[in-house]
Amino acid sequence: MHTHPHDHHNEEHLESSAVLKDIVIGMSDGLTVPFALAAGLSGAAAASSIILIAGIAEIAAGSIAMGLGGYLAGKTEQDHYNNELKREYDEVEKLPEREKQEVKDFFKQIGLSEEVQNKATEEIAKDKKQWVDFMMKYELGLEEPDPKRAAKSAFNIGVSYIAGGIIPLSPYFFINNSTEALKISVVATLICLFVFGYFKSKMTGVNALSGGIKVTLIGAVAAAAAFGIAKLL
Amino acid sequence: MHTHPHDHHNEEHLESSAVLKDIVIGMSDGLTVPFALAAGLSGAAAASSIILIAGIAEIAAGSIAMGLGGYLAGKTEQDHYNNELKREYDEVEKLPEREKQEVKDFFKQIGLSEEVQNKATEEIAKDKKQWVDFMMKYELGLEEPDPKRAAKSAFNIGVSYIAGGIIPLSPYFFINNSTEALKISVVATLICLFVFGYFKSKMTGVNALSGGIKVTLIGAVAAAAAFGIAKLL
Repeated sequence: MHTHPHDHHNEEHLESSAVLKDIVIGMSDGLTVPFALAAGLSGAAAASSIILIAGIAEIAAGSIAMGLGGYLAGKTEQDHYNNELKREYDEVEKLPEREKQEVKDFFKQIGLSEEVQNKATEEIAKDKKQWVDFMMKYELGLEEPDPKRAAKSAFNIGVSYIAGGIIPLSPYFFINNSTEALKISVVATLICLFVFGYFKSKMTGVNALSGGIKVTLIGAVAAAAAFGIAKLL
Repeated sequence: MHTHPHDHHNEEHLESSAVLKDIVIGMSDGLTVPFALAAGLSGAAAASSIILIAGIAEIAAGSIAMGLGGYLAGKTEQDHYNNELKREYDEVEKLPEREKQEVKDFFKQIGLSEEVQNKATEEIAKDKKQWVDFMMKYELGLEEPDPKRAAKSAFNIGVSYIAGGIIPLSPYFFINNSTEALKISVVATLICLFVFGYFKSKMTGVNALSGGIKVTLIGAVAAAAAFGIAKLL
């Protein structure tokens, strides 16, 4: 086992890795979509100035959708949790036998004997808060969401989306010919996508090299498709 | 309790609600970002033809990033699960006492007596597969991912993103004046966002009206920001 939820050091570790995760999510999405959009508009031979405006509009829209969307999703999760919590308290009050049977079913399903199932169920049901907490976590699979985490996470993702989006767009700021700007944008963005994919995979403990290649591939396919479609139109 | 994991009827129910969830996720994102992008470009007084090309490039990029991204994320989750599974089998083999202590800690933390903790731990540890399954699910909090689900989910989200994106863009197809097209786009998109937000909330069991308003708000803020920024440039 690698996690000890009540270890303070580990909580700090989880906090900082959550921030890193937000940054990586926001940045790899921020790199991908504005990159592909700029590639598509270059394919349609749009001027660099139009590409910059479209790109900045996209970054504004995307960062708000991801950031505000993430924040409101966090709030909704909190509401959902509170509703279910209230319902479990009601059910424990009104239908205690049925709820006890469900606790017993849990212990049966993990492989305990009839005797231990009964004892464990009685012990859980002795304390109402403990009983409901158990039901929420292990039967409904709901963890109590941290409302501050949702807001921070939304902010981190939104800002990282902006930071990511600046990379594929910046060549268009300096180079008027959008075909030339696209070349630099492709090289810079694919390198960044690889680096982010690499670290993202390292953090989740899967093969970092193949993770980097996957993320790069998504960006490349998205940009190629946008370029091809815009060129056809 | 509302879920019975081994009930066939309920699995079908979960399956169809997962599809609905994918559709709603893809569609509300597909509505928001192309909508805001088109609004931004209208703010910069771009021609409807440019807005259409940018919008279609964005839809291609966004649907590939969400679809392919979702698919590869599903694959990564599967790898992660398999790595952890292998590690747990190793640890149960090499450090059985430490792993038993962790099972015991779980039973302690949910509130069982010392006696029942010991009995339950012995019963779990009798069978290696049962023991590892328990550790995976209740200590690491990992569910075995369904690889087919990941692919289907990616496809549903990608297609829904495209379907969603067509709504804010279609007025620009019929109306050359982008300011006029924007007006229809705003009305059509905000109505659709409200409807999707409403159903999304209904599905998760939170207040549907406030959910609809939230989703509409995200779209409106993103579009207004993109419009404002593009107008300034």
